[in-house]
Amino acid sequence: MFDVTRYAVAAQSIVDAGQFLYRQGWSPATSSNYSTRIDPEHIAITVSGRHKGELGAGDVMVVDLQGRPVQSDCRPSAETRLHTVLYELFPDVGAVLHTHSVKATVLSRLVPAGQALELQGYELQKAFAGVTTHESVLSVPVFENTQDIDALAGATAAWFRDHPGQPGYLIRGHGLYTWGRTMAECLRHVEAFEFLFECELETMRARP
Amino acid sequence: MFDVTRYAVAAQSIVDAGQFLYRQGWSPATSSNYSTRIDPEHIAITVSGRHKGELGAGDVMVVDLQGRPVQSDCRPSAETRLHTVLYELFPDVGAVLHTHSVKATVLSRLVPAGQALELQGYELQKAFAGVTTHESVLSVPVFENTQDIDALAGATAAWFRDHPGQPGYLIRGHGLYTWGRTMAECLRHVEAFEFLFECELETMRARP
Amino acid sequence: MFDVTRYAVAAQSIVDAGQFLYRQGWSPATSSNYSTRIDPEHIAITVSGRHKGELGAGDVMVVDLQGRPVQSDCRPSAETRLHTVLYELFPDVGAVLHTHSVKATVLSRLVPAGQALELQGYELQKAFAGVTTHESVLSVPVFENTQDIDALAGATAAWFRDHPGQPGYLIRGHGLYTWGRTMAECLRHVEAFEFLFECELETMRARP
Amino acid sequence: MFDVTRYAVAAQSIVDAGQFLYRQGWSPATSSNYSTRIDPEHIAITVSGRHKGELGAGDVMVVDLQGRPVQSDCRPSAETRLHTVLYELFPDVGAVLHTHSVKATVLSRLVPAGQALELQGYELQKAFAGVTTHESVLSVPVFENTQDIDALAGATAAWFRDHPGQPGYLIRGHGLYTWGRTMAECLRHVEAFEFLFECELETMRARP
Repeated sequence: MFDVTRYAVAAQSIVDAGQFLYRQGWSPATSSNYSTRIDPEHIAITVSGRHKGELGAGDVMVVDLQGRPVQSDCRPSAETRLHTVLYELFPDVGAVLHTHSVKATVLSRLVPAGQALELQGYELQKAFAGVTTHESVLSVPVFENTQDIDALAGATAAWFRDHPGQPGYLIRGHGLYTWGRTMAECLRHVEAFEFLFECELETMRARP
Repeated sequence: MFDVTRYAVAAQSIVDAGQFLYRQGWSPATSSNYSTRIDPEHIAITVSGRHKGELGAGDVMVVDLQGRPVQSDCRPSAETRLHTVLYELFPDVGAVLHTHSVKATVLSRLVPAGQALELQGYELQKAFAGVTTHESVLSVPVFENTQDIDALAGATAAWFRDHPGQPGYLIRGHGLYTWGRTMAECLRHVEAFEFLFECELETMRARP
Repeated sequence: MFDVTRYAVAAQSIVDAGQFLYRQGWSPATSSNYSTRIDPEHIAITVSGRHKGELGAGDVMVVDLQGRPVQSDCRPSAETRLHTVLYELFPDVGAVLHTHSVKATVLSRLVPAGQALELQGYELQKAFAGVTTHESVLSVPVFENTQDIDALAGATAAWFRDHPGQPGYLIRGHGLYTWGRTMAECLRHVEAFEFLFECELETMRARP
Repeated sequence: MFDVTRYAVAAQSIVDAGQFLYRQGWSPATSSNYSTRIDPEHIAITVSGRHKGELGAGDVMVVDLQGRPVQSDCRPSAETRLHTVLYELFPDVGAVLHTHSVKATVLSRLVPAGQALELQGYELQKAFAGVTTHESVLSVPVFENTQDIDALAGATAAWFRDHPGQPGYLIRGHGLYTWGRTMAECLRHVEAFEFLFECELETMRARP
């Protein structure tokens, strides 16, 4: 059983995140899904298919670490397992956000198959928890898109088990996953990634 | 005779859509027109030439499926027939939106004459009703612009009679038409199209 | 002497226009100036150097058709004569807006000296008063920038005396001038020009 | 000792600036830092690592001209010395803003090492205090990024001692520093720089 007040606070942080992310244009057309940890065994996550700028109390539900609904008849996001494997893998992760911006989508389609997007020399890399210099290399893997979410969840878990210091990944033509110890840290990571993606695209345009 | 309460609800959904679409920059300078179905024989549609971000109760009127005003002295949008042929053709269509964004305009001028814009590999294609995978092909025909609306209405009706599964079309240098069972679904389709148009243009720029 | 109520209404329309134009990003950093006609002999115009998103009652003054302050110790915009020659030339002009967007600035620097920017095939050309088809040609002259405003005023007056049907002009590296019978029509013209400028730049990028 | 009311007014101007600059997208993900002069010996400056769109009374502290905290246990921005050398060098500087936009970041990485970004022919150059014509040359030096802030502070102080008429500089991959006699003037300089950076990038794209 989970603490109801902790659930309510978690759900509110998801509703607030949705208003911000939708307004930024990073979660259009009912895309995206968001989650936050209630306790070691329970996760609050968005219900499937809702408008992210208009989330309300009825649009967030509880699942366990296997992604099964807890005290709910709602259907969780189809991508729930992409969230829960991160909570399983990293006990200090408190929030996971999947966003779906134009920049992330376009960039994910431009990176050649099998390569990661590598970023270096940006002061804003220091926005990621644990990064202290722009001279480090931020490596963002790009997974091929698939409707087989379990397979994708396994692939992402395997990659991040080997690279625990990296803060997110792209799915080709599909968007970004990133996480943090708190929702505030996770939102900072989304902002930093979006900034860096836009910088990369702007640079490609200006220097073709 | 139409139900007045159904008309009022339809009109309000058009006013609300206008505020959203204008704020997004997709209906500038009194361009665009919007409609929603009141009942099988009656359509609520914007009056010609109004500012779409400032629509009020007096800016929405009723027409029949031939586009003739019903209980109104106002002049409906010059493009009313482009709306009504869709309601005639598809009994489950409840809303039609014509928007006029920079992205749709530019892209419509870049597609060679006689070709459709084909989109594939985007997860957001699933935002269109009935689409379940990014591996399907979204085909967006581009009609040549003309001031002869009846001719254009006939051409669009003929094309969609043959391609009932496709969710919208472009007019060259002129913008997007899309529809849905409800206004909410139709707005989701506009957002998805705009996202995809921007992705296509960003990709062209980054990879010339 | 001018009618004080007409002045107050004119000033309010300028304040409102400023909030809109600044929010759009078309009047940054105290650039731009706006005017509207009070009566055949008097013009309300912005005081020099004010923040256009924060205009108040004290930021609009009255000048005559020669640009001289009327009942005011304030200094009118340095470009006042660019406004007043248009009111002199066209008795039905009721508002003039000079905006200073990135798009107008960049495009004005890309048009070769001595050439006009020519626009054709855009449905949105119909947003300009008197235009009924996208097949017409919109011709936007580009004047060389100068700090000699009287000379520039003379050059623009001469050009538009010969081309009364065209709705605006660019100054190189400096922005747009457009006008209309009312402030609402003039704002529609600004929106239409900005839309068309953005289309032209987007097209250049996508098709280099 | 500093005047507490002057501190409170200074802090409020920083909070207000943060809301504006964050909303513009120029201070994402806790990047940026802002300061304003309280008196010849005291500077109000943002506390390290705060969200710039949500600054409150507890996010601004006082330092002396050597960057040491005054009546505070907080840690000032790591880049405090980049601010204080400007207040030391220029007695009439009343505010310093460091912003971190995509445009400034991208452009700073495109300028070749050892070169300045030179801007000419833009009417908006007149937004900088003391500039009266678009024919002057605005020279924006680009310093290499480093985590050694004292070294960078020394380099910037040396450059501006020799070029007191220039209004700002870039750090590669890191953003913009600019200043003014008042916060309002400094914000005008930020807007003008961002406008010019966007113009330069748009021009590179349109004319590759």
